Amino acid sequence: MSCFEMTYRVPYAETDQMGVVYYANYLVYFERNRTEMLRSMGLPYVELEKQGIFLPVTEAHVDYKSSAKYDDLLTFRGWTAEAKGVRLKLACEVYRDDQLLCSGYVVLACCNEQGRPVRIPQELKDACVNFSGPENA
Amino acid sequence: MSCFEMTYRVPYAETDQMGVVYYANYLVYFERNRTEMLRSMGLPYVELEKQGIFLPVTEAHVDYKSSAKYDDLLTFRGWTAEAKGVRLKLACEVYRDDQLLCSGYVVLACCNEQGRPVRIPQELKDACVNFSGPENA
Amino acid sequence: MSCFEMTYRVPYAETDQMGVVYYANYLVYFERNRTEMLRSMGLPYVELEKQGIFLPVTEAHVDYKSSAKYDDLLTFRGWTAEAKGVRLKLACEVYRDDQLLCSGYVVLACCNEQGRPVRIPQELKDACVNFSGPENA
Amino acid sequence: MSCFEMTYRVPYAETDQMGVVYYANYLVYFERNRTEMLRSMGLPYVELEKQGIFLPVTEAHVDYKSSAKYDDLLTFRGWTAEAKGVRLKLACEVYRDDQLLCSGYVVLACCNEQGRPVRIPQELKDACVNFSGPENA
Repeated sequence: MSCFEMTYRVPYAETDQMGVVYYANYLVYFERNRTEMLRSMGLPYVELEKQGIFLPVTEAHVDYKSSAKYDDLLTFRGWTAEAKGVRLKLACEVYRDDQLLCSGYVVLACCNEQGRPVRIPQELKDACVNFSGPENA
Repeated sequence: MSCFEMTYRVPYAETDQMGVVYYANYLVYFERNRTEMLRSMGLPYVELEKQGIFLPVTEAHVDYKSSAKYDDLLTFRGWTAEAKGVRLKLACEVYRDDQLLCSGYVVLACCNEQGRPVRIPQELKDACVNFSGPENA
Repeated sequence: MSCFEMTYRVPYAETDQMGVVYYANYLVYFERNRTEMLRSMGLPYVELEKQGIFLPVTEAHVDYKSSAKYDDLLTFRGWTAEAKGVRLKLACEVYRDDQLLCSGYVVLACCNEQGRPVRIPQELKDACVNFSGPENA
Repeated sequence: MSCFEMTYRVPYAETDQMGVVYYANYLVYFERNRTEMLRSMGLPYVELEKQGIFLPVTEAHVDYKSSAKYDDLLTFRGWTAEAKGVRLKLACEVYRDDQLLCSGYVVLACCNEQGRPVRIPQELKDACVNFSGPENA
């Protein structure tokens, strides 16, 4: 299996009155995961932006299976589901211990500073291979 | 067309350094829209909870077409895409003037206080018919 | 009394597991209030930025007296506490009906595009007089 | 010096269109810091709540000196400024490397499950001595 993993502690700020993490916050978790995945590839997103590569989100999907709670030490697991043309699809799962709480993906469009779609740089494409996901295990 | 519409002003808080609304915030917009849609049906969510009906989100999907910006006066447009068994699917679109910026949906699971799935109350189901969406126009 | 008032509905997103509005969100409420206060003065902040006037926050203070809850229809009341040199101090209160839930202020530094402090434009200073606060009632 | 320190990476989610961390987010940083400080004392807040001790915020103050940016690896430094009766005052500073970006404090009221003020448990008071701050260095 070739996934990128990191842990994250849930603050009070991200809970709601049902006593669980509010559903929109998982998209921030997905962002935290892909940022660290890119960094671990040697291509921090902050550097990509300096090189004129922007990756705005064009699609997001989340399936909520169970709830994360305050002070949970979560594990985020991410990988590249697709990297083709101008389109980068990154998958992400959120776990508490071995329990899968949530899974989903985002589709990013590779763009230049003017917001025009551009092909994913080869370097980024190659790096994505390092995290090809649990399916390829 | 039978949609529920409301307007919303974008605060600085919801922008990011790309100068646009951060992608997770659209799920909060969807929530604001369904809350007001339920209220307009005469079934405020706060009252449903008092009656022991909870509607946690089990699935969320967003397609981002264009960007909302700081101080934009957005229009949210929502409707019932499906209301069957324990499952309520609500669609939402975000507009600036006539431009569609984003569309998506959430699936809600009708639950009791113990988190067990229960059939959507008939009163809620009937009310949902009032907003059956642009397709039925 | 010369205050600027607006109403605001609390979404689920802004509550926490204590069942009340999370404390950081009041600073977003303060922002919403000053944005609308500036607009009502005929000087929307978005226009000030286009003219090269930026108002970053240099200080914020909040006193929490009681809790706002989900679906509360709050009233925000704001006024100018001070407008002198490069410094603009704006006060804000949050009410549910007649109950004061929270009060506080922010200090803004009037800056140019390069982030250098500049005198508050006379037009803005004059407009601030319109909302001089409950003390001057 | 006896402070509690932790590091934190700034996500895109917490920036705004000025290209810096939005001012309300520092209160979330303060929360992250005090949560980890309590854990390091052997008194995780989640356990305090189970024992019926709640610590709602009654006052918050922030002085903004310079701006945190996307992807900054910040250091949060916290300590006990006061622990007396029912009142716990915790200070916090935010650094990027050696540069102080922001400082402030929160006042917490020690309460029982019914929201009534109760004396700070001796165990918590004693633990607070471990982080008495840079002044006592």
